Amino acid sequence: MSKLLTPDEVAAWLKESDNFLIITHKRPDGDTLGSASALAQGLKEQGKTVFLLYNPETTSRYLQFVKQYHAPDDFTPEHIIAVDTATTELFPKNADKYKDSISLCIDHHSSNTLYAEKVCLNAENAACGEIIFDILMTMPGKVSPPTAERLYVALSTDTGCFSFGNTTAYTLYVASQLVYAGAPNKELNKVLFRTKSHGRIGMEGLITSGIEYHFDDKVAIASITRKMMETTGADEDDLDDIAALPGSIEGVCVGITIREMSSPQDCKLSVRTRSPYDAQEICAKFGGGGHKLAAGCTIEKTIPEAKTEVLKALKDIMQS
Amino acid sequence: MSKLLTPDEVAAWLKESDNFLIITHKRPDGDTLGSASALAQGLKEQGKTVFLLYNPETTSRYLQFVKQYHAPDDFTPEHIIAVDTATTELFPKNADKYKDSISLCIDHHSSNTLYAEKVCLNAENAACGEIIFDILMTMPGKVSPPTAERLYVALSTDTGCFSFGNTTAYTLYVASQLVYAGAPNKELNKVLFRTKSHGRIGMEGLITSGIEYHFDDKVAIASITRKMMETTGADEDDLDDIAALPGSIEGVCVGITIREMSSPQDCKLSVRTRSPYDAQEICAKFGGGGHKLAAGCTIEKTIPEAKTEVLKALKDIMQS
Repeated sequence: MSKLLTPDEVAAWLKESDNFLIITHKRPDGDTLGSASALAQGLKEQGKTVFLLYNPETTSRYLQFVKQYHAPDDFTPEHIIAVDTATTELFPKNADKYKDSISLCIDHHSSNTLYAEKVCLNAENAACGEIIFDILMTMPGKVSPPTAERLYVALSTDTGCFSFGNTTAYTLYVASQLVYAGAPNKELNKVLFRTKSHGRIGMEGLITSGIEYHFDDKVAIASITRKMMETTGADEDDLDDIAALPGSIEGVCVGITIREMSSPQDCKLSVRTRSPYDAQEICAKFGGGGHKLAAGCTIEKTIPEAKTEVLKALKDIMQS
Repeated sequence: MSKLLTPDEVAAWLKESDNFLIITHKRPDGDTLGSASALAQGLKEQGKTVFLLYNPETTSRYLQFVKQYHAPDDFTPEHIIAVDTATTELFPKNADKYKDSISLCIDHHSSNTLYAEKVCLNAENAACGEIIFDILMTMPGKVSPPTAERLYVALSTDTGCFSFGNTTAYTLYVASQLVYAGAPNKELNKVLFRTKSHGRIGMEGLITSGIEYHFDDKVAIASITRKMMETTGADEDDLDDIAALPGSIEGVCVGITIREMSSPQDCKLSVRTRSPYDAQEICAKFGGGGHKLAAGCTIEKTIPEAKTEVLKALKDIMQS
């Protein structure tokens, strides 16, 4: 059973310990990267030895600027810290060997499986970065400009620049303190939220032009073909959060994105709903799963066939 | 000459006065409306009589929910207050008669012409709503939930949900206090920033599909025809900030939007640039004007002709 620690208690433990290796989750996002990088920087400022485990899964090119302190080959950590990682299944492959020896996990997911010896968990926080902020604020150096910058990346990316439903008063308060501490929010927002790649803009053009509406415009279906990806030169990074697009249209209660994967007979569906429509219920009909408002499934058919299938499945739900 | 007041001094003056009429600027945006509505609500909570002047210019349908306290025909105000309005030229027509008798102007534009008897001006603020917050916080009731909601509309709309370059640490701090005070940021963000109309989504699809790149992709040109507006059913409200689109593309330094206006021989150009490119310099070549990074002009030619003209004008600038 894990021992639950407050941010103060974490700071006290960090003070009396040394030689840390920090693990981020696989396919690292801004929160896990920003949190790990900020914690590493904060500990370095306290004279500690600390590295980040190199994450072999691709880091989005939009986050390459977040400083990662890669451990040299001969570094033997005394303590392993996992940040923003709810379960050991989310560990990158090269962290597997540490899964039974995590000293501390700092996280904001209520689904955390308490796999670490010590856990600092607050599921009220929009971003793990808020907890790192709480920890660093109890340490002598508090939050330096480079630490503030990385924590701003964590908070802003996990909340869609403070626009998502998870954004709390505390998120905004911490963000204000980070900007006071020197986080260059203007420059970061420009890169993270106000710049679109050619691939992204091309895909948005093709996707939005092709959206189909059904059931009195309450259902919107977007399609992504491999041909579209080729034409626009878009890659995975360019599709970040694209599944939110059809669901963001006024009056749409069920937004569906059908994406052709490795072959024309292999479609991945992402479903986003507004209450009371249940995305999980829709995807369960095809053996998929997820949450009430966001779920996914796979249909081994072509896009037009998958569309027909899902519209058939929606008939009862939309007309009840 | 205007007398400059601090927020404290404004609060003291408001306390000893009564019967206010509040003026917003023409084509009201979220900041002027939210600021006026919040100030009215705050004053009402102090037992004052206060109304907003009905603004005959169209209010965007996305802001119709912000409560406006329309003055009854027989109301004779003692004091006129203008909010977020830099000059009397920005007054709506039915406020013209008051232009020499404004008791107080509360504003954040450095271009304010100091036309009012008393002025509370802070050009450091991203939104006028921040100054209204400062004023209300010195009053006994401080910020009630309805006041907080309206000030959140003011702050969030003037900063693109805290993503624009004008967002400061203080903006984020005030936003956090508003959410603590009861502003429903989750619901407001959904309506203001995370919902797109059918007209908007249709226009974005057509516009992004038709973007043309020139000068090694450093210049992006988007076109908006009347036919596109007809096809998508989009109206003026749906085009809000659309001129930012071509300029938001990775690597683009000059983003140009050419819009066909009342006739095919009447084009309006909006130019957005990144430093060192000067939007004003480009538009001045066609008799237009604006700011260094955002300017506009009119070219009395068709879209293809206007495009040729502007590309010709850009030749020296882009190759120097």
